[in-house]
Amino acid sequence: MSLSSTEIRLAGRTAALESFATARVPVRDPEPGEVVVRNAFTSLDPGMLRRVTEPDLSHGYTLGAPLHGEAVGHVVASADPAYRPGDAVAHPFGWREYAVAPSSAVRRVDPDAYPSLSTHLNFGLVAYVGLFDIAGFRPGDTVFVSSAAGAVGGLVGQFARRAGAKRVIGSAGTPAKVAHVRDRLGFDAAFDHHDDVDVRLREAAPDGIDVYFDNVGGTQLTAAVEHLNPGGRVVLCGVLADGAALDPRTLLAHRASVRAFSVLDHLHRAPDFGRDFRAWLRDGLVYDETVVDGLENAPRALLDLRAGRYTGKVVVRIGGPGVDR
Amino acid sequence: MSLSSTEIRLAGRTAALESFATARVPVRDPEPGEVVVRNAFTSLDPGMLRRVTEPDLSHGYTLGAPLHGEAVGHVVASADPAYRPGDAVAHPFGWREYAVAPSSAVRRVDPDAYPSLSTHLNFGLVAYVGLFDIAGFRPGDTVFVSSAAGAVGGLVGQFARRAGAKRVIGSAGTPAKVAHVRDRLGFDAAFDHHDDVDVRLREAAPDGIDVYFDNVGGTQLTAAVEHLNPGGRVVLCGVLADGAALDPRTLLAHRASVRAFSVLDHLHRAPDFGRDFRAWLRDGLVYDETVVDGLENAPRALLDLRAGRYTGKVVVRIGGPGVDR
Repeated sequence: MSLSSTEIRLAGRTAALESFATARVPVRDPEPGEVVVRNAFTSLDPGMLRRVTEPDLSHGYTLGAPLHGEAVGHVVASADPAYRPGDAVAHPFGWREYAVAPSSAVRRVDPDAYPSLSTHLNFGLVAYVGLFDIAGFRPGDTVFVSSAAGAVGGLVGQFARRAGAKRVIGSAGTPAKVAHVRDRLGFDAAFDHHDDVDVRLREAAPDGIDVYFDNVGGTQLTAAVEHLNPGGRVVLCGVLADGAALDPRTLLAHRASVRAFSVLDHLHRAPDFGRDFRAWLRDGLVYDETVVDGLENAPRALLDLRAGRYTGKVVVRIGGPGVDR
Repeated sequence: MSLSSTEIRLAGRTAALESFATARVPVRDPEPGEVVVRNAFTSLDPGMLRRVTEPDLSHGYTLGAPLHGEAVGHVVASADPAYRPGDAVAHPFGWREYAVAPSSAVRRVDPDAYPSLSTHLNFGLVAYVGLFDIAGFRPGDTVFVSSAAGAVGGLVGQFARRAGAKRVIGSAGTPAKVAHVRDRLGFDAAFDHHDDVDVRLREAAPDGIDVYFDNVGGTQLTAAVEHLNPGGRVVLCGVLADGAALDPRTLLAHRASVRAFSVLDHLHRAPDFGRDFRAWLRDGLVYDETVVDGLENAPRALLDLRAGRYTGKVVVRIGGPGVDR
């Protein structure tokens, strides 16, 4: 091959554009057991900026090296007989146009499973597995979701509504997002998490909470645990805002459970999710996705995402409009 | 009826005999919906002394009123057609010879389910439900149990061993108890929790822990969470020693779960427990129970229990030897 690839490298540790550098590199041939993937979409997650700015949390965001994150695309060259050019795959080597990846880090995806290939970036599956498998959602449950205007939270609430929740409550960070959660996503109640969360939960869930889907940690986690009904369940998902601790005695008092999970342990649920997801889309589910075109625009979009300027999922389409959608 | 009953009342809030007063009271006739139970056994739990000494944790241990706790006995008079004299029942009105109880707070027990009626005091079922239903024990798991010389802990470890654990590890508070856990109860490893728990766990469980059955909270809980394998599960059981907090980020890092429960939500498992328990007893399970004779000896026994002078379960047989066993 004589391909070249654009990639975004870490160039600094501030929350600013100068921390991101665009580089053009040759794409090497795959060695045995490797595949070369042309990425179609790369995922942006709010937590990525903490990996940029906080060396303790960097998890491999290394100065001078390309960033990474979930991506989905198509195999263009393979030195593993299990993969052929054209196969659709997902993998953790985003933020670059072409990825040379060990096939053990790649997973095959069904390009027809979802309306868009970008859905394989897994935020939908995270919401689905977290709500149904980790929280063990049951019809009649009252569900509270933080970051409800976000990619995962917005789906959790809509899934719970369609699966027979008694009441679905969400929190978000601006009045516009609160309105979006309530009016567009159809939550029964929504509030601004800058308010007194304890008071707002008492108003919104006077009969208590059965499931808290936590996307943020911090004071919302502390408050939500106090409102759990006996046998209540908390799902921990995503990057936690601060070090608020859980008091085991509170868990005991509520006979509560707290569970964290990785969606990568639950990929076998993708077919079930795909089936329900398509049915719910036909039924009016709001699939709130923003597609940012062009890898060069990814750093700006990440800064905007972290600043709260989007609702729903933000993905970057690599290669510009009309490609690989 | 013209029965009189001995009961133990709370007379002070120090960890001393003078905090307990013995009283002799007439037993009133049952009103509609009530039963009168002659208690055969009353349960002693280490946490009861905290309810005596710490008003914030008293949960109904009120100065001048009788103490309470799990008890098992036989109906002697009934004003509820569902119960007849002679029926074996368990209920939360221990620390007294006769209890007049609303039948809604009483549950019928099968007197032939276990070798002793005292087993209906539920510590065996707590161990069984906690390990198999709450922790979701699987063969091949490595299990760590704190307070492993105690009533619940000693059974958890023995159950796990018989159900195919890879490795069973226990902690206890004295060298004699550590030896008891390892040599008599058959744990693979045991250590003194006054040692550096982190170091001891690294030695005893070099491949990590899949299940931590927590009976104490505090530093052992904090340390054990750090040794969890991915997907590890923590069961919270019993009174927690101190306010050590759980860091949700640690739970996320280990994809871990923490679950608290009340055995009263799981009484439907009693028949399964009874079947397995009897089989395991035939197979050499050590059923480590101390029977203290006479309600008047219960305060001293509770102080001794709290001071760590017993292993296994401590029950008080009401009415002296030869009665109701």
